[in-house]
Formats: sequence, structure tokens, C-alpha cells
Amino acid sequence: MNKEERPLILVTNDDGVFAKGIKALVEATLPFGDVVVFAPDTARSGMSNAITVYNAVTYTKLSSKEGLTIYSSNGTPTDCVKLACHVLFQERRPDLLLSGINHGSNASVNVIYSGTMGAVFEGCMNGTPSIGFSLCDHDPDADFSPSIPYIRTIIEETLKKPLPWGVCLNVNMPEGDIKGVKVCRQALGYWKEEYEAQQNENGQTGYWLTGRFVCRDEHVEDTDDWALANGYVSIVPCNVDLSDKGYIIEIKHWEKYHVG
Amino acid sequence: MNKEERPLILVTNDDGVFAKGIKALVEATLPFGDVVVFAPDTARSGMSNAITVYNAVTYTKLSSKEGLTIYSSNGTPTDCVKLACHVLFQERRPDLLLSGINHGSNASVNVIYSGTMGAVFEGCMNGTPSIGFSLCDHDPDADFSPSIPYIRTIIEETLKKPLPWGVCLNVNMPEGDIKGVKVCRQALGYWKEEYEAQQNENGQTGYWLTGRFVCRDEHVEDTDDWALANGYVSIVPCNVDLSDKGYIIEIKHWEKYHVG
Repeated sequence: MNKEERPLILVTNDDGVFAKGIKALVEATLPFGDVVVFAPDTARSGMSNAITVYNAVTYTKLSSKEGLTIYSSNGTPTDCVKLACHVLFQERRPDLLLSGINHGSNASVNVIYSGTMGAVFEGCMNGTPSIGFSLCDHDPDADFSPSIPYIRTIIEETLKKPLPWGVCLNVNMPEGDIKGVKVCRQALGYWKEEYEAQQNENGQTGYWLTGRFVCRDEHVEDTDDWALANGYVSIVPCNVDLSDKGYIIEIKHWEKYHVG
Repeated sequence: MNKEERPLILVTNDDGVFAKGIKALVEATLPFGDVVVFAPDTARSGMSNAITVYNAVTYTKLSSKEGLTIYSSNGTPTDCVKLACHVLFQERRPDLLLSGINHGSNASVNVIYSGTMGAVFEGCMNGTPSIGFSLCDHDPDADFSPSIPYIRTIIEETLKKPLPWGVCLNVNMPEGDIKGVKVCRQALGYWKEEYEAQQNENGQTGYWLTGRFVCRDEHVEDTDDWALANGYVSIVPCNVDLSDKGYIIEIKHWEKYHVG
């Protein structure tokens, strides 16, 4: 970043450009730099790092004023980051990518399904310090105001000392009063799906996802799940390197097998 | 698994139930157990761990004979695994989940966008040992036969000693002759997108993804990228825990900041 320039901050989400959460994030972000919103035109939850490969994607400028320009796209959250970084900002890489504020938790293994965090991983691989923010409240009219000072502190720290390549942050905020911040690991667990079956107009059975989360890390205090249940903001640093270094050693002897 | 029962093996992919790659994987798998194919009805590439949340998903039995039953679904690869594990197999967890053989590489950071590997992460979180197989050849009529003996050895080893919870395998196979196997880490890098712009019928510009991969791990020999470029099958153990343990320590002092 050129010292004379204000930071260029890219803001996206997966609830769509008109969600209350992204408006709250823009409000939190405006004091820090020039903000460009580039977000899906409709809600695209649960899109993970999905990319559009069988169609072309498009985007539209919705508004522009001093320090804030807003675009929407028919692509996924990951498409939005790709388009912003490779079509819109060809000459200058954003100094920061912020995604959210998501309506609903992206803690624990939800990070894997999350479109909010998909955008964050994409920004991170592109070399931009990237942070996802989520509030543990699905209400479209949720109150994001208690989160704002925490978000601002995290932005300040990240602008002072950018995250290294490959590392990004998954920040989740509890509902209601906030006691403080915990830097922690992702709780392990899974969704036990309880599909709701419903006949459609063709007499075919359609299945709606209605899972419940099963935590494998109960009764330990170093996870995001624990932090949120106890009123803390959770910050989990994530890495785009998914390799399990320990298990590489465990099965290294497979290289010796003769096959064929 | 009950000792008297043959292993129950769930097979899926992201190229769709009619792709040549999944037929090759079923052929490789039949000697090991009872095979149930549960795969998308059309190609769903680049779907990562996307789940369907705004619609109901459906599935259909296509065929059934001794030891092999085939279902297709309008869901994503991850939806297919969820439906198979929570609607179809309510009483018995599959002993193994195999995904692929993908037409095209899922090495390096492609693991993050891959629907093939999305299904694998889903199976893994459900507690089923899960492996993704991909061939570095996009041709719909690619020759999968050199891969089969390698796939069989990997299945054998995994049935003997199941992967621990949270660990799954990303196996990629080079085009042409195979020199052997390397157990390695995921190469780091990113896609430098070079979108192809095209006017659509409404005069709007549509953008098609046509990126090129930039490897940050060139000239090192411990990555999947290196293994594949040098004629080896690459096996990368991946973990669903994305937490960066080192960076948790790096920013632990953020917990001390007073905000608000």
C-alpha cells in the first residue's frame, strides 16, 4: 500500500448485498479506508467455496459516493471475490477483505459450509488479509451494534500487522452482552441431519435440511464453541493448507508398496 | 462393522452419476464390498462443500443388482453424502466413502473448490473413512485403467486400518505411466483468474472463469504438485480442523484489549 493512500477495503458476504449484516460491517469499516462492497445480489448461504463454472457471471454497480462504492453480482461469494480482485481491481490489490456480518454462527465445522468464510479463504489465497465476521443470531433484523467495537479493534490490529499468506480469521460473536475476546481453535463436530420429508407437486419426496450440531469437543475450554456459549467473541485463525502433517508420517510407508 | 457382513461402500463424485470416472471407481471397488452409488444427476464441478438450503433435494433409484445399487440426486456432492448417510443408511454407517474418479486434478488448493473433495470432507465428519480420487486429465473419455491398481491398494490399506475421525485422503493420479506413490503435503498457491468477457443477449457483460494456477511451492519435492509433475500418485492426508495452531499463539495477546 502506498503510504499516501487510504486502505482499500473489499467487503462481501453470503446473505446478499441488501442484508442488514453487511450494512453493519460497512458502517464499522468506513473510518478505516475506501470501502468497495462486492456481494451477491441474493442470499447465497451454505455455498462454501463454490465457484461458477458452467455459466458466465455478471456484476452491476449499484451506487457510488465518496469512500463507498457498491456492486452486486449473480455469482457465489467466492465468485464475488474473484471478480473484484481480477476484473475490478486489476491495478491494486485490496489491503483488507472483510466478509459478513453473517446472520448466524460460522463457528466449529460450519466454517466448512460457510459462503462467508468461502469468500475469506479466496481473499486469503489472493494475498489479501481476510476476515469473516458472524453473529450467532439468524434473525434478519438482528442487533449488530454490540459487535461493532470488537470488529473495529480486530480491523485495527490487522491493518497494523497484516496476516501472513494462507492465514485468515474466522470471527464469531455471541448474541447479547459480550464479555471479551478468546483466540481459540475450531471445535470439532458434525451435523446430524434430520431431513424433513415433503411431497412435491410431482408426487416426489423432497428433503429439507434440518440438522442439529453434535460437538465432539464438549467440556473443553479452548474452542470457539466454548467461547461463544460463554459470552466471548471467538477468533479462530484458519489456514488454507489442509494437509495433516502428522498423518503424512503415519502412512509414509505406503510409498513402498508395489502395485499393478 | 459386523464381522460377517461385507463392507458397505458409498461411492459418489461431482462429475455426475453418468461420468466415466465414477464407473471406473465402481469397477475398482466391487471386489471389496457392497457398493451403493449416490451421486449428482448432472455435473456439479466446483461446488466445494456447498449444501442446498433454499430448496428441498430429491433422489431416485436408478438400478439395483447383487452388490451394486445406484441412486442419483439433484443435490450437490455434499448433499448426496448427507442424504445417503442420514436418509438411506439410517441403521448402518458406510464403512468407506469413495469419491471420484474426478476428471481433472484436485491437487494443491483445488481441494478447496472441489465438489469431489467436498463429499469426502462430509463423509469424514460423519465418521466414515473417506477418500477422493482424481485423474489429472479433463477428457470425458480419459483412460482410468492405469489408476485402478493404485486405488485398490489404497482401499485395502484403509479397510485394514481406518482413518481416524477428521482425517481424509486426497489422492491424485498423473496422466499416463505411473512411477509410484508419494505421501505428501498440499502445494500452496492460488488461481490467477483471467476472466473471458462476453456480451450476453441483454447487452450485459458475462465473465467466464479461465484462470491459471500459480504455485508458491515450486522447486520443493514434498508437495502433491511436485509428485504429479514427476509421474507419481500423490496422497495428501487432509484434516477438517482448519485451525492454525501457531497463529493462535501469535495473536493470543488480542484477548487483553479493552474495547467498546
